[in-house]
Amino acid sequence: MATGPHRPQTGDLRWREVDVLEYKAEGSAPFRAVTRQVLFDDPALACQLRYFEMAPGGHTTLERHVHAHAVVIQRGAGACLIGDTVYRVAPFDLVHIPALTWHQFKADPAEPLGFLCMVNAERDRPQLPGPQDLARLRDRPEVAAFIAV
Amino acid sequence: MATGPHRPQTGDLRWREVDVLEYKAEGSAPFRAVTRQVLFDDPALACQLRYFEMAPGGHTTLERHVHAHAVVIQRGAGACLIGDTVYRVAPFDLVHIPALTWHQFKADPAEPLGFLCMVNAERDRPQLPGPQDLARLRDRPEVAAFIAV
Repeated sequence: MATGPHRPQTGDLRWREVDVLEYKAEGSAPFRAVTRQVLFDDPALACQLRYFEMAPGGHTTLERHVHAHAVVIQRGAGACLIGDTVYRVAPFDLVHIPALTWHQFKADPAEPLGFLCMVNAERDRPQLPGPQDLARLRDRPEVAAFIAV
Repeated sequence: MATGPHRPQTGDLRWREVDVLEYKAEGSAPFRAVTRQVLFDDPALACQLRYFEMAPGGHTTLERHVHAHAVVIQRGAGACLIGDTVYRVAPFDLVHIPALTWHQFKADPAEPLGFLCMVNAERDRPQLPGPQDLARLRDRPEVAAFIAV
């Protein structure tokens, strides 16, 4: 991806030369109202930087993978599940998702939630939870309430 | 760096568990009023994510290196030199600095300037401009005015 040296913001978390993409192919995994923008994908950099945004009430896929995520919240309000804990998140909070840790982000019902996510350019595919994983996650009432969309 | 899964913002672009560091060792290179915070430095990630902030009137070092930078402005107002062009920057603008490109960030006189910077964890040391480099940069009046701090 060859990008200009300076790409100004052209709207709220929208940029010149940056396409607003589907989060994932519809039907490939459960999610709701999420967009994906790839901000930096430079072969000279070993990581990519992406911006994800959920519309109010939207959520990412509940998933895990070997690769780690480094996240900086940029706008809105919501919560995320990391492992067996649910955290409230607000702009500029930092979120770290270690290897093979179940995680999901969710925007509040009346707020969007947008975050930057740094990730290795070379990475494994996400895994979806099976019935046993879901049963284990639901052991904690707080988590059961979070993942019961 | 072992970090908690959720590190909330504790003040304007300050975080729990994140130290506010000197940008560089005093006297090692020219700069003014810059702090550095390492947000993510996880061996599982091939890049680091840092937050740099200049106080009003502050500036980073004019330098270049083989490694690339991916920058997202987070607060304040200022300008940056990339190669032979000066760009005004504002929150959420994207800045890409390719290999061996002279660059410098500068906060406006009455505003701070803060940005996230993604960089390969393994990278070369910055080079400072010599007299010939500076003479070449000063060929353009806009650049001469920018680097004449």
